[in-house]
Order: sequence, then C-alpha cells, then structure tokens
Amino acid sequence: MKETVRTNLLPAKNGEEYTMQFLLEVVDILTNYVRKTFDRSTKVLDFHHPHQLLEGMEGFNLELCDQPESLEQILVDCRDTLKYGVRTGHPRFFNQLSSGLDIIGLAGEWLTSTANTNMFTYEIAPVFVLMEQLTLKKMREIIGWPNGEGDGIFSPGGAISNMYSVMVARYKHYPEVKIKGMAAAPRLVLFTSEHSHYSIKKASAVLGFGTENLILLKTDERGRVIPADLEAKVIDAKQKGFMPVFVNATAGSTVYGAFDPINEIADICEKYNIWLHVDGAWGGGLLMSRKHRHKLNGVERANSVTWNPHKMMGVPLQCSAILVREKGLLQGCNSMCAGYLFQPDKQYDVTYDTGDKAIQCGRHVDIFKFWLMWKSKGTIGFEKHIDRCLELSEYLYHKIKNREGYEMVFQGEPQHTNVCFWYIPPSLRLLPDGEEKRQRLHKVAPKIKAMMMECGTTMVGYQPQGDKVNFFRMVVSNPAVTRSDIDFLIDEIERLGQDL
Amino acid sequence: MKETVRTNLLPAKNGEEYTMQFLLEVVDILTNYVRKTFDRSTKVLDFHHPHQLLEGMEGFNLELCDQPESLEQILVDCRDTLKYGVRTGHPRFFNQLSSGLDIIGLAGEWLTSTANTNMFTYEIAPVFVLMEQLTLKKMREIIGWPNGEGDGIFSPGGAISNMYSVMVARYKHYPEVKIKGMAAAPRLVLFTSEHSHYSIKKASAVLGFGTENLILLKTDERGRVIPADLEAKVIDAKQKGFMPVFVNATAGSTVYGAFDPINEIADICEKYNIWLHVDGAWGGGLLMSRKHRHKLNGVERANSVTWNPHKMMGVPLQCSAILVREKGLLQGCNSMCAGYLFQPDKQYDVTYDTGDKAIQCGRHVDIFKFWLMWKSKGTIGFEKHIDRCLELSEYLYHKIKNREGYEMVFQGEPQHTNVCFWYIPPSLRLLPDGEEKRQRLHKVAPKIKAMMMECGTTMVGYQPQGDKVNFFRMVVSNPAVTRSDIDFLIDEIERLGQDL
Repeated sequence: MKETVRTNLLPAKNGEEYTMQFLLEVVDILTNYVRKTFDRSTKVLDFHHPHQLLEGMEGFNLELCDQPESLEQILVDCRDTLKYGVRTGHPRFFNQLSSGLDIIGLAGEWLTSTANTNMFTYEIAPVFVLMEQLTLKKMREIIGWPNGEGDGIFSPGGAISNMYSVMVARYKHYPEVKIKGMAAAPRLVLFTSEHSHYSIKKASAVLGFGTENLILLKTDERGRVIPADLEAKVIDAKQKGFMPVFVNATAGSTVYGAFDPINEIADICEKYNIWLHVDGAWGGGLLMSRKHRHKLNGVERANSVTWNPHKMMGVPLQCSAILVREKGLLQGCNSMCAGYLFQPDKQYDVTYDTGDKAIQCGRHVDIFKFWLMWKSKGTIGFEKHIDRCLELSEYLYHKIKNREGYEMVFQGEPQHTNVCFWYIPPSLRLLPDGEEKRQRLHKVAPKIKAMMMECGTTMVGYQPQGDKVNFFRMVVSNPAVTRSDIDFLIDEIERLGQDL
Repeated sequence: MKETVRTNLLPAKNGEEYTMQFLLEVVDILTNYVRKTFDRSTKVLDFHHPHQLLEGMEGFNLELCDQPESLEQILVDCRDTLKYGVRTGHPRFFNQLSSGLDIIGLAGEWLTSTANTNMFTYEIAPVFVLMEQLTLKKMREIIGWPNGEGDGIFSPGGAISNMYSVMVARYKHYPEVKIKGMAAAPRLVLFTSEHSHYSIKKASAVLGFGTENLILLKTDERGRVIPADLEAKVIDAKQKGFMPVFVNATAGSTVYGAFDPINEIADICEKYNIWLHVDGAWGGGLLMSRKHRHKLNGVERANSVTWNPHKMMGVPLQCSAILVREKGLLQGCNSMCAGYLFQPDKQYDVTYDTGDKAIQCGRHVDIFKFWLMWKSKGTIGFEKHIDRCLELSEYLYHKIKNREGYEMVFQGEPQHTNVCFWYIPPSLRLLPDGEEKRQRLHKVAPKIKAMMMECGTTMVGYQPQGDKVNFFRMVVSNPAVTRSDIDFLIDEIERLGQDL
C-alpha cells in the first residue's frame, strides 16, 4: 500500500477496494496483537520514559503535521502505538481492577465503533437504547428490586456513576436545589468510609457540597465501615444543625476489597431518612455469583447502586451503570427538555429517548459489548468467571500467608480478589520493627514495581494506606489468569526483591 | 462455526484458531456494513417502533438469558444489530452535528478497543497520554494561546466539557468552594445566550448554582448574543448583590449555527473580571480553516474553550476537548490525590499522570482515532473538509432561498453549515399568515420527518425555537456528502410534503 493516501479511501469514487484492503491490514495488526496478548512469552509492556517516546522511537513520531502521511505510514503508526503500549489483556497484567481482553467484548466494541452512533435518542440508536433498557432491568432484578423496577443509565465510569447518586439523593431531598442552587438547602453532609473510592470526595467538591461536608467513617481492620461510627456521626451532625443526606456504602473497596455491612448501614439510613448508595463499582460483579453474592446482602435496600461491568465482569472499558430504585428521579434531576433533540411530536414513543436523564448530551454506546458478552456467556458464564477469580485469589492468599518474607496487610481470607501484602526482602527480615524498617519497607514495592515494568514481565499495583507503608495489592479479574500466573508473580517479586 | 461456543475462544487452550476465525467473520460483517454505508442505494435506516423490536424480529431477540448462545448466533446478533440501526455515516444522514464514517477514525477506534486501556496514568497508557498532550497543545496553538501553553483534557462529550469550564471558573474565583461548598461564595450568576446549548443550564443545576442563577442573554435575529444585553445584565446582577462569575459565548450554536461576537463579549468580561468560556463544541472545527476561522475572532481571549472533534471534524464518537488557558487550574480544581493510583514514588515523571485533573477516575481513550486522523489528513486535510462542508451549505442556501415553497428562518448566508428553513406545502401557501397557518405549519416538519424515517431514505433534524414553529435544521459535517445528496434531500422533502 506504499504511498497510498487517505483520499483513495471511501467516500472516494472507487474507494471500496482500497478501503477494504486498508481495513484488513489494520485487522491483521490487531489480530496479531490479540494473539500475542495471550502468549505468555510476550512481554506485558516495553517500558519507555515519556521523554524517550517524545523524542521519537525509530520511525515513530508523535508530532502532528500540516501535511498528510501515507496509509503505509499510518499502518506503521498503528503497529508502533501497540508496541509501546501496555497489554492490559495479558495473563500477567494485574495492575488494575479492569484487565483481560474478552474476545466477544472486543468484537462488540468493533461493531460499536462501526455503528458510530449516540445514545441520546431512540431515533438514531434504536437497538442500543432498547438493549440498555433491558440490561439495566436485568441488573435491577439481580440487585433484588421487585420486578426489576426502577431506573438507571450507563455513564462514563464509576466516578460519574457515583456522582449521579449524590445528585439524585440531593434532588430527592431538596428538589429546589436544581433551580435555586445549594443556597436553597441547609448545610448538607455526606458520609463515606475512609477506605471508599475518592470519587465520592470528588462529587462533594464538584456538586457544591464541599469536601469538608463529606464525613469520613472509621473502618475495622479489614476496611469495613463500623456502623456505630456512622450512627454517632449522623447524630453529631444533626446536633450541629447539619442535614445528613447521603451515605455511601462500598461493596468491594479499591484497595482491600472490603464490603461494608449494607444491612446495618441501611437500618441507620432508614432510621434517619438518609439516601443509601452502594458503590459496587468493583464488587457489584459478585451479585452474579450464588456463592459470593451474600457479601452484598442488603443491597436491595439501597436507593442507588453503582456497578461497573468493565471491572469484575471483564467487559471492555468503559461500561459503568448507575441504578436507581425510584423511577423518575434521574429524569427529574437532570431534564432540561432541549427542543432540538427531544421533540415531543415524534412518530414513536418518546419515552424511549433517554438522553434527558443524563448529565451528558451525546453519550457513547457502552451497552453493546456488554449485551453481546451476556448473550455469549449467559448469566451462568459470568458466575463461573467470578467464582474462578475468587478461587485464584484464595490460592494466592494461602500460598503466601505463611510464606517466608511475606506479611499480610490484614488477616483472614480476602472478601474480594484483593490480596494485600508486603514482600520483605531478606535484608529487612531481621531488622527490629520501627521507623527504619518502615522507611526501608516503604521503598520496596515501588522498587520492585519499577523493575517489573522495566523487565516487562508483569505488573501489579502498590500503595500506602493510612499509616501503612507501601504494600502490593494483587487483584484478579482477567479470565486468562491461571495458578501458574500467580506463581509467576510471586517468583518474580522474589527474584527482583531478594537483593533489595 | 455452527454450535461453537465462546469457551473455545482465547484464552482457551488452542483457542487461537477459533478466535481468529470468529474475529474475521465479525470483520466481514463490519466491512460489508461499511461498504453499504457509502452506497446510496442502501437505506439510511430500516425503521421499527420500540414495541416491534422488543417483541423480537425474526431471530433477533434482545432478551438476556442464563444460558450461553452459540458463536453462530452471536454473529447473527451482530448482523441484526446493524440491520435495525441507523447508518450515521450514510451520505444522506443529516440528522445530527456528528455524522460520517471516517475510515481512518474507524481503524483508530478498532485499535483503541483492542488496546483496551485507561487514560488515568502514563503507567498503563504511555502512548495515548503523550498523544493527548501533544494534540491538546496543537489545539491550543490553533486557538492562539502563546506557544500553545495552557491545559486541557478530553472528556465524555461537549456537555461535560462545558461543565468543566464552569467548575474551573468557580475554582479560579472561589477556590474555597471545593472544600467549603457553595455556601462559601456569594450568590454566583452565570450568563449564556437563549440560543446556547442546554448543557450550560445542566451544569448550573449539577454544580449547585441553580438554573435560576443562569441568566439568559438576548440574541439578534441570527441567534448571536447582543453584547449590550450582557453588559446591562451584568450591571443589573451586581446591583442586586449577585456575583457574575462566568459568561459562555457560543461559537456555532446548535440550531442556527450562530457565532457570538467573542471580542465584544471578551471586552465586557475583562471589564468586570468574569471568566469567559467559548463553547465551540460545534464551531471549533472552523478554527482549522483559514477562510472561516475569523468567525471565532477573539477566541484567544477566552479563559476556556470547548471543542468537539467528533462534530465538525468528522472524528468518530466520542471526542471532545476542554481547553483551559491558565495552567494548573484543572488540577487544582479536581485533584484528590488518590494514593493507590497516583503514587508519587513511581520511576517515571509522574506529571504525566493526568488522571487527577479529571472528574472521572477511569477515562476512555478518545485521543487515538483523532491523532491518527490528523496524521493521515494533516492539518490541511481538516481545512479542506471544513471548507467543503461550508460550500455545500452555501449551495443549499442558494438553492432554496428563493425557491417556491421555502422560507428561511433567518436571512443571510449561514455562518456555519446550519441552514434553517420551513418547507410550506402547496395547501398552506395561500393561507393568510396567522394562527391557523402557524399551527398547520408546525406539524409539517414532524410529518415529513416521520415519513422520511419510514421510507428510510434520509434523515434531517427539525425543532421549534422560541416562538418559531417547527422548522428543518439542515447541517453538513459528513465528508461523503455531495451536491447530489443536497438535491436529493430537497426532492425528498417535496415528494413527501407536497400533499400535506
């Protein structure tokens, strides 16, 4: 395809042949990438520093120019983009809550981009709008809301889904805020645990509550909210004249994978008439498993639930749902009735135009890949996947809990796939507990991680938490992972860490 | 591939062959769809009512089940999903500001989904993060900010980009709102025109300002803000003790395609120290054209700019940028410093971890398709595309402005590609002006539109505006459109409307 330029492609006259040839060459690059992603002899990444990539790697120049490149160069750019990226579908990529490369999901995304449409109206996305509606209903049924009644929408990620929950809670209790602003409400306070996702704090800043009006709740040693602390703080806030309006319970915290006790929290929310949101971005997937869904007992009492199929259910990024028990609130909260988009005099039933529920105008089609995966796996397929990932985590937990050189961050079997641990290199093992050991241990995980990335063999997350120094957080959500990959990770940590 | 199930696919042992075969069958479906999209003998859509699709069309069942479907059925589902959808890339699809199917952009999206990663850190999206940075800088240079300095981020659509602008304006003037909430600020008011996009109103509700604190500005007959009205309303607000904090100037309004006079608005904003945002979601693309960019004169004086490459520049959905002139504000406004994601002790320069600027946590990769298109077209390719679309609109304008049965909604050549007009069927032409004619005319556009959709021949938008009854809004952003398609639209309107 040397020196062919894009003006030969469709919509050019006789552009069909070039177009098909070009697309098939792209697909060839992509299928090769897919093949290698699953091949354990391929590296997870080929690490380069920002300045290296910016300076340009042999023939890969990121700069944008006035003049067009040939299609041949475009294909090289595609190859290079993949070459210097990270294989998030690799069986040894454990770095994020989202990992894996589901082939059906991938096909779904390819189709979605080919359809290139927008979720705001039935008019231009009839099939996708209906798929979203049916899938949300199914999710609400699984949550346990009678007949799957309620409402919901897919949003651009869990942080936005959580933001929706705060907005809807505010609208439910103080609908006049929509028109009059926060000045129309008393001083509103929100509650969430110290271990909860930072998006709740972000929402409190964005929506005009202010982060100091988000009250952090204490957790037990496993990172689960202590309900008595919630009640004490609700009472305290009321005594100060503040109005408690929203409680977030986390189902599967980001670092520990902890599940807050929803039923006990729900009792308090009911008693004080506070909106209960369950952030199941990470843990929501466990609802698909008869074995593990008890960890979310009480979720049916929530007023709203965040659930990200792009995390534990292996759906490609992005796919996040906010589900609301009471119908009409999303619409009431967000509708602006734009006449040019949501004309009331269309020939079809315009209640299917769901765009006015959203804070977005245009909205990406995130539903199709998920719907297609559900079709291809069935509900039982998701259950098997969840159960398998949790088994792998148990395997890791049992492998390291008494192993020399490891210390668990919290005791007991993990509730989710999160296994949090310190690797203690031989040189630190005999040091007495104290500040020196802490400081040296704090540097171990970042060093091992940096070496992993430079070798390109595997990736796993680390972070400090509260007064705990940097530790590894291992998670499993990728269906390609086997016990041998878990073994590999541990071997690699020991190989890279033994001389630190 | 009969009765093959997904468990045969990768990561299954020996799943490679099945996987490649399955993906190639999907690609075959998609390339056929692409081919037909550009074929004018193909319908734009095959319309069905929601209840028809929900009841199930021969073999196409939207319901989700417990048990898996075969891969064969999955392929049928893919075909049916496309069959009952809308071809937004068809040369006769004029319904939205986003249309067209760019082949390079499509290839970019396929690659993006195959890479399946997340923009929040350099760690897992090194190439994409750098592409975003370089592209945003290029856009800022084109806006006219010295050396392309400033900041920005790609967001999930223009509504969210506009919301960012309001947030950043608030943070600039009242940074304490982040911590203390809206109670820490006086009564803040925002200004935007009656013709502006509803997302500004949405932002005022979401962020806790309240929609009544968004003051609507009068426009001239072409939908452009009257600067004197802005100044009068700013003075009035201040006299009432309110604090003007944000002005939105629209560059390319949704319905009329109007460009507010940015320089005159900027003078007022500077005089009263008010944040100036330019919503160029639709019109920003004209900055790429030496011929048309004067319509945005003064844009370099804005504090922030929304610019959606997925509209006038033909990039696949979604691709929207918010650009901010002052560096550091986005970060200051949104950062929460989550320790598990933005570790300060990584081995690379962590200023490339841009996730803490966003209101999202995970963020979809929207940059690659745009970057790849820019590479393949060069800056001059975008310019040609813009100029061509505007020429086509002029062609339409001149074709109908004196044609029998047409009336223009506003006089004069369109500023953007929006051509707004009434088609007046013969039966109404002799009616005297008055309420009866208005009422009957109000029904004409919806009726013609419904028939178009049922015939599947073309799609164009309509809406009322202010006291004007339903009219057609024709727009061109699809590079596949030719004069013959414009002619077709007019013929079709007359064919369908002549007996109304």
